[in-house]
Amino acid sequence: MHVKKKRETKVLQTICPDSKGLIAKITHICYEHKLNIVQNSEFVDHLTGRFFMRTELEGIFDNVALLADLEKTLPIGMLQKLHTVRRQRIMVLVTKEAHCLGDLLIKTAYGDLDAEIVAVISNHNELGNLTERFDLPYHFISHEALNREQHEQQLITQIDHYHPDYIVLAKYMRVLTPTFVTHYPHRIINIHHSFLPAFIGARPYHQAYERGVKIIGATAHYVNHCLDEGPIIMQDVINVDHSYTAENMMLAGRDVEKNVLSRALSLVLAQRVFVYGNRTIIL
Amino acid sequence: MHVKKKRETKVLQTICPDSKGLIAKITHICYEHKLNIVQNSEFVDHLTGRFFMRTELEGIFDNVALLADLEKTLPIGMLQKLHTVRRQRIMVLVTKEAHCLGDLLIKTAYGDLDAEIVAVISNHNELGNLTERFDLPYHFISHEALNREQHEQQLITQIDHYHPDYIVLAKYMRVLTPTFVTHYPHRIINIHHSFLPAFIGARPYHQAYERGVKIIGATAHYVNHCLDEGPIIMQDVINVDHSYTAENMMLAGRDVEKNVLSRALSLVLAQRVFVYGNRTIIL
Amino acid sequence: MHVKKKRETKVLQTICPDSKGLIAKITHICYEHKLNIVQNSEFVDHLTGRFFMRTELEGIFDNVALLADLEKTLPIGMLQKLHTVRRQRIMVLVTKEAHCLGDLLIKTAYGDLDAEIVAVISNHNELGNLTERFDLPYHFISHEALNREQHEQQLITQIDHYHPDYIVLAKYMRVLTPTFVTHYPHRIINIHHSFLPAFIGARPYHQAYERGVKIIGATAHYVNHCLDEGPIIMQDVINVDHSYTAENMMLAGRDVEKNVLSRALSLVLAQRVFVYGNRTIIL
Amino acid sequence: MHVKKKRETKVLQTICPDSKGLIAKITHICYEHKLNIVQNSEFVDHLTGRFFMRTELEGIFDNVALLADLEKTLPIGMLQKLHTVRRQRIMVLVTKEAHCLGDLLIKTAYGDLDAEIVAVISNHNELGNLTERFDLPYHFISHEALNREQHEQQLITQIDHYHPDYIVLAKYMRVLTPTFVTHYPHRIINIHHSFLPAFIGARPYHQAYERGVKIIGATAHYVNHCLDEGPIIMQDVINVDHSYTAENMMLAGRDVEKNVLSRALSLVLAQRVFVYGNRTIIL
Repeated sequence: MHVKKKRETKVLQTICPDSKGLIAKITHICYEHKLNIVQNSEFVDHLTGRFFMRTELEGIFDNVALLADLEKTLPIGMLQKLHTVRRQRIMVLVTKEAHCLGDLLIKTAYGDLDAEIVAVISNHNELGNLTERFDLPYHFISHEALNREQHEQQLITQIDHYHPDYIVLAKYMRVLTPTFVTHYPHRIINIHHSFLPAFIGARPYHQAYERGVKIIGATAHYVNHCLDEGPIIMQDVINVDHSYTAENMMLAGRDVEKNVLSRALSLVLAQRVFVYGNRTIIL
Repeated sequence: MHVKKKRETKVLQTICPDSKGLIAKITHICYEHKLNIVQNSEFVDHLTGRFFMRTELEGIFDNVALLADLEKTLPIGMLQKLHTVRRQRIMVLVTKEAHCLGDLLIKTAYGDLDAEIVAVISNHNELGNLTERFDLPYHFISHEALNREQHEQQLITQIDHYHPDYIVLAKYMRVLTPTFVTHYPHRIINIHHSFLPAFIGARPYHQAYERGVKIIGATAHYVNHCLDEGPIIMQDVINVDHSYTAENMMLAGRDVEKNVLSRALSLVLAQRVFVYGNRTIIL
Repeated sequence: MHVKKKRETKVLQTICPDSKGLIAKITHICYEHKLNIVQNSEFVDHLTGRFFMRTELEGIFDNVALLADLEKTLPIGMLQKLHTVRRQRIMVLVTKEAHCLGDLLIKTAYGDLDAEIVAVISNHNELGNLTERFDLPYHFISHEALNREQHEQQLITQIDHYHPDYIVLAKYMRVLTPTFVTHYPHRIINIHHSFLPAFIGARPYHQAYERGVKIIGATAHYVNHCLDEGPIIMQDVINVDHSYTAENMMLAGRDVEKNVLSRALSLVLAQRVFVYGNRTIIL
Repeated sequence: MHVKKKRETKVLQTICPDSKGLIAKITHICYEHKLNIVQNSEFVDHLTGRFFMRTELEGIFDNVALLADLEKTLPIGMLQKLHTVRRQRIMVLVTKEAHCLGDLLIKTAYGDLDAEIVAVISNHNELGNLTERFDLPYHFISHEALNREQHEQQLITQIDHYHPDYIVLAKYMRVLTPTFVTHYPHRIINIHHSFLPAFIGARPYHQAYERGVKIIGATAHYVNHCLDEGPIIMQDVINVDHSYTAENMMLAGRDVEKNVLSRALSLVLAQRVFVYGNRTIIL
């Protein structure tokens, strides 16, 4: 019996050592597979001799054969991933602040961000009401009376229950251990309320106030083992002046934080972000 | 007798109707010519079904054979240009304001803009002194006692004497006729002191003041037959407030104007700007 | 019987012809009334010889005596308003797009915008669900089968029922007649989805796409009798490039629109915006 | 014999503990002295209870009597300075990069910055040619074969010969000792090529590249005893992406550096910048 295959859109991500003819070879294999290139972007990092390519393909896919053809033709050391373009599932972690969560709720509800929030988890109960207004599950997992490992184990259990594609820290104000981070490699995205690497750590707006800066900002980044030091995806800033207290900065910064987070997420969800060392290549 | 050919860097610009396998075909031909792709960028305009590609190539070129191979393989209607990467010659036209000219003089003198200013032409004599400080020829061609055609004919004669690649209107405050513009197709770049299409025409800062806007800007664009309506290359803005008079805006706007002009020029000189209808594609 | 008066915070707005000693006279009267100046800002428009001052005062107010003392001492032609600082009531008008309304709902619910949304009115029913998630009344007043005057009369009746301080057009996509506008002088705030005066009227993102601009923006302004020509309060922009269709611009522009609208509202609600002719002075 | 006094414009800067009636008292004394207030701005730092006011006055001044009247009336601990508005003298220190110096030369020559460059000093001779094109003295004071103190002593001798109002470090790439800094209190302005406090110290663009940031910037600040930690006057940023090497960032950053430096200088020269602790208040 025959199953008629459907046309699909997929993203092929390639990272490998640079060499002559790579674009020709990869695109030729796609052509032989009768796949149409909707959009192609590549970047060669001449400092490290590394080649990056994002190929958005449309057609009827034979994944196994395609990847085998690529592997056969291309140099050793090539990394390739073929992502099916579909609505991604995201798990949102929060503490008490509503602005990032609120923005994600509105955007996913009205199609401005192509993702599904599967649930919200918090170590506080303040945002349960907001989450439930959007008919989504809210899990209050208090960190009180638990050590860090115990708390994270409860988080992991709850998160894994939903099989999310990404974990979004939408002002989740607790530091995560390497154990937790390792469990979700390149799948945790955080919004930090400063233009990193300025003002790492706690209370960045208070640090900014103390230093007397004239711009404040926000940074969306992948979470790795070092606090606030993962690969940066997106940053933006706004001007402030002497009349801003740390509280005024915090309030003004909220729009920047939520915008940077949701724009970074859009890029990640569209498979446009390549992580290479501690840097991102966005194609 | 044999002339040993040298390795060179060239930019291949391709514009054509989109069709399957274009990237594969073009890059394959480059590969067969043993040319290394330093950087490749492409864009498909799905609304008009048009394909744009900029390929920066390095190697030993046989221009005629390369272009013939491309023409043979590729669909009818393809436009291809092969630019040798070299220092371009620019002719600067000014009226009385020093900031854009001054910036171009410093940048070309110190290598921050990879171009050679071959001469400066003005309908006034105010900027002769500045130009000569940089040991460059300054031609004062007054428009007084001449009709527009006569004046432009004198400009053309003087310009053509230098064989420039581009004509840069660095606050040249006279409208050019279609005759003049047609003489230099896609080779005249203007800086307009507003974020177009707002405030077309004369005294845009005064118009901005009258309208009470909170941002002002500048636009670098190719000059076509319609005043201030050519394809836009680059725009930028700054914030203003109620305390700015039109004169304050003019002063504050100067840094934006000169930055936008020189950044636009960098893109043009690197053969990164494709003109398509009234739009630019920057690859 | 005696009523003990409470300490309050009020904002005194002064607009008058400039003359010597104005600041001294006004602040001296405040001092005599034992009022503390929390914040004072002034601006002299030297082009029109006009003086503007915003004085935030704290203490026990005798409004009648204070205004009488000011009137007695100061030149003829002075306009003064004394606003009690309190949570303002806003009525939100929308059509179908959720982003501005959603942002206002979240911000007012969580204290990031110091205002109370009294109700939402729309000529469509799409956003009823969102409004009701926040337990606020939603009035669907269709414009179908009504002429413009009839429809606006129904709006006015519904609006006036709530006695709002301000009417916020949060992507309300119908043109309002002078009759409606006159009914709420300097009390209607609109968000327009372009950096005015570029792209007045319908479908500004499509106009922007056609023109090939490299920046798009949004403008919050008071509504007056001329479409999109009222006094501008706040503007902001973002960069776009050739890869943006009109739809991509629309999506990217939403964050700008909602940020500009809520920042403009903050200024208006804090009595920091003075309207003078077709301009705003923000103190 | 009588000397007829001329009308002048002066700036009165006041810093003192906040107390009731300060604005009224100060402006009343100005009024009694028949001085017209061209522009007045004040700021109360409610966290530290400190009052700042900048009063631009126009009229016939009796400096001694005015300051005595202010001192008599106002609380103890008040600091007041009365600056005559005149073209300030600046001494520019550079190393090898031309962009900031070039911008200052053009701007002072054409009136876009209201200052006189009295001379340029460098520890290298690369920029002598540029300086002399503008008919200004260039002093090449090599640091070779000298210890830091000896070199700075030669700088001080040369600088003091010109009696400048401000010392501008326009990409002067040597660290200054506290001895030098103390010699010119609040009179040395530096441009640092990062958005401080990120990337303090050497090679900030290389640090930025390593960290993979998506924005780079520049900071103009007063120089104090701690490297790159003086009060910030102005900051600005631009976006970068993965395609920027450290060298590309350096090139792109130059326009930001020069703009930030000259805008900061404008504010300082207009006596609009108050230093308070490690912060600036800009009125």
